[in-house]
Amino acid sequence: MMKKVYLLGATGSIGLQTIDIIRSNPLDFCLAGVTGYNNFDSLVEIIDEFKPEVVAIKSQDQALILERRYKDIKVFYGNIGLDLFAAYNQEESIILINALVGMVGLRPTIEAIRVNRDVLLANKETLVVGGHLINDSLKVSKAKLYPIDSEHNGVWQLLKDEDISKVKRVIITASGGAFRDKTRDELTNVSLVEALNHPNWQMGKKITIDSATLMNKGFEIIEAAYLFDIEIDKIEAIIHKESIVHAMVEFNDGSIIAQMAEHDMRIPIAYALNFPLRKQSVSKRLDLKRLNNLHFEDIDIKRYPCLSYAIDAYKTGGSMRTVLNAANEAAVSLFLEGKIKFLDIEQLIRLSMDKHVVIDYPNLEEIYQIDELVKTQIFEHYKELLI
Amino acid sequence: MMKKVYLLGATGSIGLQTIDIIRSNPLDFCLAGVTGYNNFDSLVEIIDEFKPEVVAIKSQDQALILERRYKDIKVFYGNIGLDLFAAYNQEESIILINALVGMVGLRPTIEAIRVNRDVLLANKETLVVGGHLINDSLKVSKAKLYPIDSEHNGVWQLLKDEDISKVKRVIITASGGAFRDKTRDELTNVSLVEALNHPNWQMGKKITIDSATLMNKGFEIIEAAYLFDIEIDKIEAIIHKESIVHAMVEFNDGSIIAQMAEHDMRIPIAYALNFPLRKQSVSKRLDLKRLNNLHFEDIDIKRYPCLSYAIDAYKTGGSMRTVLNAANEAAVSLFLEGKIKFLDIEQLIRLSMDKHVVIDYPNLEEIYQIDELVKTQIFEHYKELLI
Repeated sequence: MMKKVYLLGATGSIGLQTIDIIRSNPLDFCLAGVTGYNNFDSLVEIIDEFKPEVVAIKSQDQALILERRYKDIKVFYGNIGLDLFAAYNQEESIILINALVGMVGLRPTIEAIRVNRDVLLANKETLVVGGHLINDSLKVSKAKLYPIDSEHNGVWQLLKDEDISKVKRVIITASGGAFRDKTRDELTNVSLVEALNHPNWQMGKKITIDSATLMNKGFEIIEAAYLFDIEIDKIEAIIHKESIVHAMVEFNDGSIIAQMAEHDMRIPIAYALNFPLRKQSVSKRLDLKRLNNLHFEDIDIKRYPCLSYAIDAYKTGGSMRTVLNAANEAAVSLFLEGKIKFLDIEQLIRLSMDKHVVIDYPNLEEIYQIDELVKTQIFEHYKELLI
Repeated sequence: MMKKVYLLGATGSIGLQTIDIIRSNPLDFCLAGVTGYNNFDSLVEIIDEFKPEVVAIKSQDQALILERRYKDIKVFYGNIGLDLFAAYNQEESIILINALVGMVGLRPTIEAIRVNRDVLLANKETLVVGGHLINDSLKVSKAKLYPIDSEHNGVWQLLKDEDISKVKRVIITASGGAFRDKTRDELTNVSLVEALNHPNWQMGKKITIDSATLMNKGFEIIEAAYLFDIEIDKIEAIIHKESIVHAMVEFNDGSIIAQMAEHDMRIPIAYALNFPLRKQSVSKRLDLKRLNNLHFEDIDIKRYPCLSYAIDAYKTGGSMRTVLNAANEAAVSLFLEGKIKFLDIEQLIRLSMDKHVVIDYPNLEEIYQIDELVKTQIFEHYKELLI
């Protein structure tokens, strides 16, 4: 059956790779909806090629341009546009891919689940911030939530419907990011250009910085806890610079199973899109010779404090997870603007977490309020905070 | 629920490791039946410890001794003894472990399946010689057949109930055996002592020689074809001298999943015994550091012709598989007696296969006849054959 795909974040790295798969499999998938808030020209090209039925875009002006140009396409805009897009058209065959960056992906995810729409999630911040709300939504919905990013997709492939009580631990691998070969001291004066130079692949800027701080891995550990309903202490990250093994599951009986593939995001995206089938891949097959001389090493938490902040925030629970993410989003954005140093990112996160008074089970409104408060605080006062 | 275990080949390497697990888990398992045809004293010790309800033993004399000593134990003897043992007592909770060596394990396996008894199979020759008969038996039985040896157990863990059409290939690893670092020329004059010196573990003599010739891996490829109903050309063996990764499955979509564990046979035996549970292991856990610097290399078929003979025999089909196994059993036995050289093993197999006229779908009687003919031919004429 042809699956209709609505794609949140079509012009980003995951979005474009998803489109690549859809383009190569026109009998299986139809790109029926796209959003792109940061690259209008690129979005217009995609709309020209695929003629989707629905689009969401940043501004009203852009919406007017699109409405004039494409008479048959429903156009939404603004923040609410993403929510309306996610729940548009209640046909059953539609799946939503959330390839947004940041916690802006939370509400559209909840909206899609509300209309019983399966969600393929690449947007980590959604679960970090609102995992409890997502889980509540899933309980009263027919929708399923499937992970796209390579580590969780790997865990999903390994666990299938395995009883989680058989699992001793889940291990996700980390490339180690741009600074994996630097000492803690050397991190003091690293530049933005260096931080954006990921050793293994090209991704969006925000996630590339999150990889360098290992906050990305912290987010993934939280994500795994929600996705697989497993205690966070049973989830470990390990540095594996070749990025061939994406995930491992150790069972109580001493067996470990591992998922491996070339590091090509189209493999996990295609797995999620085709699930439960495994269609022939557009990607390069893994040469078993690549398994010679793989490397795995423990993560030194002192070099990567963001990882422990993430785990702290998860354990503290409630709104602390929102603070973790908001402070990270704001700090990374300041770093990308050249306004703060690399190690200031972790400091701003720690400071924000330290002074936060936790709300136990924040609702959507509280989450968005806290998010805004924390970000505003950092944007307006980062200089004093960092003295 | 307590499972009652009947153990064929209790005094061998797999048998003793199975007993080790049963001894450590007295609430889960009860050793209710044992056979031992080659080590009477060791069997008597086991009987003393576990007081099984049924025993099978080589000779009538031994049977009389046991019957006098243990009034409540049913004792069978001789070749037919194994068959009677395998189908004894039709209680549903009994599982049969076949840890025999050689094709002598075929008939008891069929007998157990006939009485709807699940079989845990460590006896490769059974499937090599009689895979078609086993499959026929399974079709009209409620019994399941589960593999114990580490490679197939690994594949089983990886595939679970996965649709085999999604699989591009199954890869089983080979330690490479005693002579993995020798050139073909150096194999001409290797000694029996060298051949029995397996680099990774201690096993029975026959399987240690089969490992050195890689016939063992050929058998395993045939076994995998039967167990997982997969085309033989989709099954590959690869040398992996660390024996940490036991099996891999490559899917059509480019993902590879792998099963790893310390090379301790108690892990796969316990997996099969406890299935579908995965109980806490008695074995050492795999340290992820062990995954650093693993090695994988293709098998040079010219150095290991037995592997290609096995695949030839499988593809030719029918009684050729019996000839493959019978010639191997006879030749290995001559080598163990010091009567022939290491490379004579492969030559005797090739000669036996070359002159065999294939019967397409041999029944049990034909299999046993051909087995005897081939073995007799080799035992009586190996000197002329090898000129």
